[in-house]
This record gives sequence, structure tokens and C-alpha cells, in this order.
Amino acid sequence: MLVSALLTSVGINSGLCVLFFTLYSILKKQPSNYDVYIPRLLVDGTSKRISHFNLERLIPSPGWVRRAWNLSEEELLSTSGLDAVVFMRIITFSLKVFLVAGIIGIFVLLPVNCTGDQLQDIDLVDISNNSLDVFSISNVNSGSKRLWAHFCAVYIVTIFVCYLLYYEYKYVSSKRIAYFHSSKPQPHQFTILVRGIPVSVGSSISDSIQSFFTEYHPSTYLSHMVVRRTNKLRALINDAKKLYRRIIHLQSSPTQNKYRPGNCFGLFGRKVDIVDQYEKKLEDIQENVRLGQSDVSLAGEEIPAAFVSFTSRYGAAIAFHLRQSINPIQWVTEQAPEPNDVYWPFFSSSFMRRWICKLVVVVACILLTILFLIPVVFVQGLTNLSQLEVLFPFLKSILTITFVSEVITGYLPSLILMLFLKMVPPIMELLSSIQGYISHSGIEKSACDKVLWFTIWNIFFATAFSGSVLYQVSIVLDPRNIPAKLAVAVPAQASFFIAYVVTSGWTSTASELFRLVPFLWSLMRKPCTRSTDDDLEVPSIPYHRDIPRLLFFGLLGITYFFLAPLILPFLLLYFCFGYIVYRNQFINVYAPKYETAGKFWPIVHNSMIFSLVLMHAIAVGIFTLKKLSLATTLIFPLPVLTLLFNEYCRKRFL
Amino acid sequence: MLVSALLTSVGINSGLCVLFFTLYSILKKQPSNYDVYIPRLLVDGTSKRISHFNLERLIPSPGWVRRAWNLSEEELLSTSGLDAVVFMRIITFSLKVFLVAGIIGIFVLLPVNCTGDQLQDIDLVDISNNSLDVFSISNVNSGSKRLWAHFCAVYIVTIFVCYLLYYEYKYVSSKRIAYFHSSKPQPHQFTILVRGIPVSVGSSISDSIQSFFTEYHPSTYLSHMVVRRTNKLRALINDAKKLYRRIIHLQSSPTQNKYRPGNCFGLFGRKVDIVDQYEKKLEDIQENVRLGQSDVSLAGEEIPAAFVSFTSRYGAAIAFHLRQSINPIQWVTEQAPEPNDVYWPFFSSSFMRRWICKLVVVVACILLTILFLIPVVFVQGLTNLSQLEVLFPFLKSILTITFVSEVITGYLPSLILMLFLKMVPPIMELLSSIQGYISHSGIEKSACDKVLWFTIWNIFFATAFSGSVLYQVSIVLDPRNIPAKLAVAVPAQASFFIAYVVTSGWTSTASELFRLVPFLWSLMRKPCTRSTDDDLEVPSIPYHRDIPRLLFFGLLGITYFFLAPLILPFLLLYFCFGYIVYRNQFINVYAPKYETAGKFWPIVHNSMIFSLVLMHAIAVGIFTLKKLSLATTLIFPLPVLTLLFNEYCRKRFL
Repeated sequence: MLVSALLTSVGINSGLCVLFFTLYSILKKQPSNYDVYIPRLLVDGTSKRISHFNLERLIPSPGWVRRAWNLSEEELLSTSGLDAVVFMRIITFSLKVFLVAGIIGIFVLLPVNCTGDQLQDIDLVDISNNSLDVFSISNVNSGSKRLWAHFCAVYIVTIFVCYLLYYEYKYVSSKRIAYFHSSKPQPHQFTILVRGIPVSVGSSISDSIQSFFTEYHPSTYLSHMVVRRTNKLRALINDAKKLYRRIIHLQSSPTQNKYRPGNCFGLFGRKVDIVDQYEKKLEDIQENVRLGQSDVSLAGEEIPAAFVSFTSRYGAAIAFHLRQSINPIQWVTEQAPEPNDVYWPFFSSSFMRRWICKLVVVVACILLTILFLIPVVFVQGLTNLSQLEVLFPFLKSILTITFVSEVITGYLPSLILMLFLKMVPPIMELLSSIQGYISHSGIEKSACDKVLWFTIWNIFFATAFSGSVLYQVSIVLDPRNIPAKLAVAVPAQASFFIAYVVTSGWTSTASELFRLVPFLWSLMRKPCTRSTDDDLEVPSIPYHRDIPRLLFFGLLGITYFFLAPLILPFLLLYFCFGYIVYRNQFINVYAPKYETAGKFWPIVHNSMIFSLVLMHAIAVGIFTLKKLSLATTLIFPLPVLTLLFNEYCRKRFL
Repeated sequence: MLVSALLTSVGINSGLCVLFFTLYSILKKQPSNYDVYIPRLLVDGTSKRISHFNLERLIPSPGWVRRAWNLSEEELLSTSGLDAVVFMRIITFSLKVFLVAGIIGIFVLLPVNCTGDQLQDIDLVDISNNSLDVFSISNVNSGSKRLWAHFCAVYIVTIFVCYLLYYEYKYVSSKRIAYFHSSKPQPHQFTILVRGIPVSVGSSISDSIQSFFTEYHPSTYLSHMVVRRTNKLRALINDAKKLYRRIIHLQSSPTQNKYRPGNCFGLFGRKVDIVDQYEKKLEDIQENVRLGQSDVSLAGEEIPAAFVSFTSRYGAAIAFHLRQSINPIQWVTEQAPEPNDVYWPFFSSSFMRRWICKLVVVVACILLTILFLIPVVFVQGLTNLSQLEVLFPFLKSILTITFVSEVITGYLPSLILMLFLKMVPPIMELLSSIQGYISHSGIEKSACDKVLWFTIWNIFFATAFSGSVLYQVSIVLDPRNIPAKLAVAVPAQASFFIAYVVTSGWTSTASELFRLVPFLWSLMRKPCTRSTDDDLEVPSIPYHRDIPRLLFFGLLGITYFFLAPLILPFLLLYFCFGYIVYRNQFINVYAPKYETAGKFWPIVHNSMIFSLVLMHAIAVGIFTLKKLSLATTLIFPLPVLTLLFNEYCRKRFL
């Protein structure tokens, strides 16, 4: 790839970003878009839809950037919880790392790389005509003493990253402790979930729990609640809740009805009618619920799982930590999740069934991760022009236009890949939910891990070793040759990944800000449905989509900083965008649905350690390739020390 | 190896065994050997040294075999504890496995192997002239349908072993539970060991513990005892104890003195003198101890570790299971070992130091395991004749005798290997003790693991891949080719391992019975020291030496049963000998020093699972080599299922 090509890409994407940012500044101020861009403020009641028109609404303003910038960590903590703080610390952590790596990379390594002439001399007159490889380590002569600069850089950055990781982990865990100290007593802290309850013939699950806990925890046992399958009741109760909220809203603001905007079936009667109508409906539902509760078969069968509450948090902790039964697969205890966080559908009954589910899911994930690209390539193959013409004969006339056919052949395959990739986080979330987690947070954490490894495999390794799946797997199965193969394959893809940061990274941030999909969805929906603000659900940030993305860019930065330092400025810009955009979204869009109190940090920590070790493996390969065997030998302690550091942190903080 | 050679070896070793057994029968009855052969009965007081002579003492009798055979499991449990029961169950488990495998092997696989003619036809006329390979799978023709017999045997034996493993694990854990139910309240059950106690300036460790536990466990905290370095005091107290025991013994049996046998400095005065003398000595020591205790510097510095006792076992369990501190490396709790089981020397102070010790030991173990054979081969090289002549010129005349030189060149190298191997269990025990365990049982369990892996590496793999260490390591680092390389290397060593079972296995059992080293030691010591029975310490069985040996023979049996079924009869005989000998030793020799309540079983379980998976890997390689690709494919689910079974057992029983 030539410098000019990169500059073009940077130009196009910068333009797109500016466009998105400007559009956002304007669209955000339109009351009809409030439910897309500031749903959180709308629900909180801090912003109302005011529809009087003024010119200011059409002029883009950077006020939201200032607001996002000025947000302090305490404010973020109080409004969005500790998870949001931890999320933002991933970005600030990356910024710190890549600032230091960037200074070393740009001011030390880049000149060293440019002055080498392994590939070609740099063309100082016509900079844009140089290949990007001139700026990478490939251009340094084999056996050159200058490679020691790279060697030192690897050491310095590793030490710096480890120091920061330690500091951040300490900070996050101190925040965790502070959070637990400051939080008021909450019901879920007094409760544990018990699964695998053995039932003797003739007695109910409830009796079994009652007798067990009154026998073994007589002084702290308070009450219990057996879990039931209640799909029908749950639907009714949800309906009732919705109606109730609507009635409350109508009663509290009697003028609301008159000003309701954009109602395409505007044939409703007076306000009082609506309230009455709603109240009648609510009564009906109430009746149904009562009927359902009295009918045992509808109330749902009992599941051998129960929430058991204790009189003190200490009592709950004891019951959670001590093994309850001589058979470890009976009376399995878990900490109860927050009430909002409970994920009901999969309270699968027996230990065996959950275990098998877990195995199946793990196998499915591994297969999905390894074999993902096969169907994608197949579908992409279907979209060549002749195939399309056969499948959709009526398109024939359009496809013959040169421009259209160029667009299709050029963009359709990558669009398909993008769409498939978009589907991965939801699929992984689904798989995690089958795995037997009982809380949304657990599901999301597990999905986060899965998506991260999926991304590393299917973007990093698949690009680096752009061969068949079998070839990739064979590399993993041959651990001795990994460094050598990485050293050949990874630097060759430097220019691709620089472009990837610019295109995928920057665009993803812009589209995160612009919320393209919700925006289009709201545009499509608006004319046909009565959208009331009370129906509005504030979205929660999908950590399992965004954390792996940030971490993947972190991995790219750490592995490429000494190979192709040119990637660092673009990464820094990406993280700067991310910093502003996500803070803005936390203020305006996302509300926390639950609080894991920073349990996402270990994922970040592990991912960074993996990045470091991968970087060391590449360095070993590179120095071998460049015939600097002393450096190769001296790199070896580094991964060992990094892994020991990781082990220490695991013991020290978890 | 020819059949005749094997028969010779079997003949020699059977002769040796018979000789040892006969000698044992006789020597056991001599009162002067009671301290070697029945120290336990001697100390218990059930046997007295009666020196009146009769002819029966010189006639070998098999009475001890009957007694050992008749011992029931309940008796063993009551006299030697659960660990001895678990130890014996390893042997019965192996017997069951190899009985079934033996029936399949001898009656199905052996005829199949013999009727093949890949190597050569069997010579039925002169059986003893056949190569042993004729009886192994190597003799079956490539691609032959008869290999399906081996395939079925692999499946049947795997299923049988897994079934037995499950059954045994269940049995052992039920025994464990029964043990805990039946045992009386014991002090160590009310106590936990706390390490990593933070000390604020100006307060002592004791204060710190006192305030911590009265704050967090007010209702259950009873007392504590800070650990101190007291090497000098301990020595004094040991001396005092020994003297005290001696005095008690002398006073209780006033006739003892007159009848003391074999005293080569028979110049001592009357009985009263000795007792007086002892009592004076004891008083001196008492004075010294008192002085030492009052002197703070001698009393030993306090170590930030303490035994904390609670008012109930439940309280101790709570304090053990709950994390005590927000910093996980402070207030680290462990279950207190039994008082007899505490290993004092290594109460290393800080978490970091223990962690580093552990790392160093792990690295040392791995290096020792991998590189062990290098110094051994070097030393063996030193013992060729010319080297010996240079080192010890005076031996020149002896070395020129043909017989002597043959013995030296033939036996010295293997003798050196044996001596080095004998040193391994103590070395591994030493390493484990540095690792930071605080109980003898923990050390022994860890040493057991280490010795097992050491044996597997340095006997199984080193024999199979009789190349350099680097070659062995390279095989392990290249996991894809392991089956292929195993399939070539392992069957080639079948005859060696058959001979190994006969020589090393049988002889080790015989020498275990005969207690060669203690016997020689007692012979040497007897003329010079006054050995009184009260000085006698009953040995405890060195599990870390014997369990790995049994498990290694189990591994040989499982991996070779379908390759060379001829190994099975010899193994069965080995385990039968073991069954009788160890039961006899439990009755007469070994007394339990501590009780882990069956914690050794998981090691057995894991080793068996490893053997199965290794056997599957070899099977995959063999079937590939024999061009039976369908069988290769069908073997693959087996290791996966075995590992899943292991995972299930781990969840179900631990």
C-alpha cells in the first residue's frame, strides 16, 4: 500500500467522521430525534420535547463535546455506575499506553525504520509515493545494530504496560471496595441462589429447603422463594406494568394528551376516556393474574432452584461460601444477582443438564470461531455478478451499468462480511445465555470474552495467515514455529491494519455516536405508531460489543507499535474519539441496567497480557528473522516475567 | 528379546523372590530382628522379644501370608487409618482392571497377534526360540480386519476402567464422609492457620490477631497461638521427651535392664544408677528449657503466622472459607493440619516469599525431571573399565579378572541408575517441603505427584524415545505428531517393559517385604549401640515412593495391554505379591503418622485418566500405522469422553 492510498483513505474517513459529527450536532437538537439521541435525559425528565422552532436548532454546535469532556469521574460514577467508569478507564488506559508507545515509536523507531534500506530507500521528494513498508521494521537491514532500538522499545513498553496494568487493577479494586462500602444494604446481598435441591418423594421443594436451612443455618435463615416457570404470568404482569406506567404518566401531566406529536391515527376521544380505558384494561389483567396465580398448573411448575434469604449479609456469605452437602452437585449455591439482573429463561434443572449445556456451548463457540469464515466466503462467492443475474433475472438491466456493477463487486463482499460480523455479538450472547448463567451481567461478561477471542481469531489471525482454516489451526497446533510464522505474516499486514484502524475504527466510533440503526429504525417506525415517551426503554450499553472492539484495537497497537509505528497516531485519534463519544453516550443515551461493580476489568487485564505475550512472540520471530540472535535470547525472559506478573495480579487482586 | 531370555529372567527373579520370602519367614522370627520386621507390634506391646530358642524359629512358615490375606478392611481401617485402606484399594483396583484386561488380552488378543505374519510366523515347535514381538500387535498384518479385535478391546477396557474409577471414587468419598462422621472432635478441626498477618507499627502480631478476630468473629473466636522460630528449644524438648520415655520404660519394667541383649560396652552399673542418671539429665534439660523460654531472643522471633482456635468446628470452617481481608494476600487462611502432621521449618513469612519459593521449586522440579538422565549418563560413562583403572590404580589387578570386569561393565551402570532413582523420592520430598506446605501430608502428596511424573518421563518416555533430552522435549512440543511417534516407539519397547515388570517390579516387592536397607542398617548398628525398644520409632509408609511405583505399573499395563498382552500375567503377579506384602507390612511395620482421610485418591484417579488418554494416543498412532483409518477415526471420541468423564468426576467428588 502506498502512502497516497493511506492518505486517501484517511481523507475519506475523516470526511465521513466530520459529516457524522455535524449531522449528529444538528439531528440531536430536533425534538423528534430525542428518543434516539437523548433517551436517557428524556426518561429522567431532564429534557422535554419542546417543539418551538428556532434557528439555533439547525446550526451544528460543539457544546456536547465540551459537556462530555467536562464530565468528572465522580459524576460518571454516580450517574452510570462503576461499570461505566471501568469502561472509560479502558480508553484512558489505552490512551496512556499509546501516548508513550507513540512517542517512542514516532520519534525513535520511525526514523530508524526509514533510514534502513532493506526494502528500498525512502523517497523524500515524493513522500506520498513511498510504500508504507518503508516505515515498518521490514525496512531495517538484517543484523543491523539499530534493531536494538526496537529491542529496547519492546522492553520499555512491556514494563510500562505492566506498571499501568498493576496501577489500574489496584485502582479498580479500590473502587470496587469503596462501592461495596458505600452501597446501602440491598436485598440481593442477603440472598443466595440454591440449585440442585434434592427432593424426597412426598415432600415439596419448598419443604425440603425449609427443613434444610432451618437445620443448618437456624440463626440466620430468613425465608425462601422457589423459582417457577411462569412465562404466561410474566407476560401478563409486563402488560400490567406498562399500562400502569402509562396511566401514571397521563394523570400526572394532564396536558400531555393534547400535545402528543405525530399521531397518524388521530381519532381518539378525550383524555378522560383514555385513562378510563386503560384502567379498565388494567383491572382485566389484574383479574387474569389472580386467576393464573390460583391455578397451579398455570402458576408454573416448581424448579429445584430457589432464592434463599438470610437475616444478615454475613449469613448469606457463609451459606454461599460453605459447601452445603456431601454431594457437591446438590445444594449448589451462587450469589443472587441484582433483581434487575436476573435472567430467568434458563434455570435449567439438574446439574448434569447444565453441565452438558455448557459443554455444547463451548464446543459451538469454538466451532463458530474457527469455522466462521467458511460460510461467509461461500456467501460472498454467491454475490458475483453472474450468480446474481441467475438468481434475480429482473436485475439484469441494472447490473449491466458499469458503476452499479463496480459498486456491487467492490463493496458487496465486504458488506456481507460486516453484516456477518455484526451478528456475532448477539449470537455469542445467545450462546452464553444457554450456558447456564443466571444473570444478564454474567451472560454479558462471558459473551464479552467470546467475542474478544472471536475477533482476535477471525480478524487478526485470519488476516495475518490469510490461508485456509486448517492452515491456521495447524499453526496453533505447532507451538514451536509460531514465532517464526508470526514474524513473517504479521508485519506483512501492517498496512492493512493501519487502514483497518482508520476505516473500521473511526467509522465505528462515528456510527456509535450517530446511532445509525436506531435512527433509521425510529424514522421508519415514527409514521405508523404512536410513540409515547413512557414506552421508551433506555438502552444499556452492550459491553460485549464495545469492550472487545476497544481491546482488539489495543491488541493491534501493542503488537504493531514496534513493527509499524505509523499505526499509533491513528490509534491515538481513535481512542480520543472514543473518549469523547462514549462519555457523551453515557450522559445522553445509555443507562446502567445492572452493576457488576467492575467485574469486566479482569477481561481487559487478560487481554492486555495476551497482547503483550503475542508481541513478544512476534519480536522473537522478527529478531530471529533479522539475524540478531542475542536479542532473540534476551527477549525470552520477557513473556515469562509478564505471565508471572499476571499470575501475581490474579492472586493479589481477584 | 527371545522368549527364552524372558523365561531366564523370570526364572532368576522368581528364584530371588522365593529366596527373599523364605529368608523373611525365618529372619522375622528372630527376636534380634523384631525392630526391623515387626517394629509396630513391638511398640504396641503385642510382641515382646522372647529369646528362648526353639526349632520352629528356623523353619520358614507361610503363617504371615495367611494373616495378611485374612485381614479385613475394617481391621485395616481401625489399625492403619483410611490412607492405608485407600493405598490397598489402588492395588485391588489394579488387580480388577488387569484381570479383565488379562482375560481379553490372553484369550483374544494374544491368539490374534500370534496368527498374524507381519513379522514372522510363530514357531510352534520351539516356542522359546520365538521373538517376543511375535506376541505383540506388531505381528498383525497391516490393514487386517483382525485389528478390530484390538479396537474393541480398547473400547471395552476404557469403559471398564472408567466404570471402576467412578465406583472407587464414590467408595473412597463415602469412606471419607464416614470417617469425618465417626471421628471425635479433635483440636485441629477447631483451628485454622492464618498467614500474612499485617502488623501495624507499635503493636505485636498477637495484638493484631486478637483485635482482628474479636472484631470479625466475636462469637466464635476462642484463642490464638503465634508461631515462633524455636529451633533450639525444640531440640531441647525432643531430648527431654526421649529421656522421659526411657525413664518411664525403665521404671515400669525393672527387669528390662538385666535382659538387655547385645550390648558391646557391657560395663554399665546397676539399674538404679541409670534411672538416677537419666533423671538428673532430664532436670538439666528442664532448667535449660526454662532459661530458654524466659530469654526472648532464644524463645524465637515471632512469625506473622498463627494458629487461631474457635469455639466450634463451624466457626473454624467459616473463618477458613470466607475471605478475611480486602487484600487477598493478607490474612490468608488455611485449615490447620493435625498436630502430628505440622511441618514447622518452613513457615516462611510473606506471601511473596512463599510464592517465589513455589515458583523456584516448580522450575527446579521440571528441570530435574527433564535433565535427570544427563548427569546419570555422565556418571555411568565414568565407570567404564579404563576410567576406573585410572581413578583407582590399586584395583588394576582385580579388574583384569574376566568375571569381575563383566560384572562391573554389566551391572555397574544399571546399579548407578538404580541408586540415582532411589534418591529421587527424598529429593522430591525436600523440594515439596520448600514449596511452602505446612503439613507432612501436604508435602507427601505433592512429592507423590512429582515422583509420578518424574517416573513417567524418565522411565516410560526416556525408554520409548531413547534419544536425547532435546528430542523428547521436541516431541512434547509437537503435539500433532505425538501419536505417530508413540506408535513407532512404544511397541518397540514392549519386551523391555515386560522384563522391567519382572525384574524391577517383583524385586521391589520382595525388597519391600525384606526391608533390605533397614535390615542391613540394623545389622551394622547393633554391635555398637545399645538399642532399646523405647528409642524405636515406628516408620510410616513413604507414600510418595510407593504410590508412584504402583501407578507406573498401572500405566504400563494400560498402555501395553493391547500392544503386548503378554505383559499382563506378570503384572497380575506383581499386584498379587503387592497385595500380600503391603498388607503384611501394614500389620507389622508401618504405623500411620497422620491421616489425610483419603486425599491420595485424586492422584490415582488422575494418573489412571492420563494412562487411558496415553493409551488412546498410542492406539490412534497404531491404527494409522496399520492403515486402518476407520478405526483411527472411531478412536477419537474415546479420549474426549474420557476427559469429560474426568471433568465430571472432579465436579462430582472433590
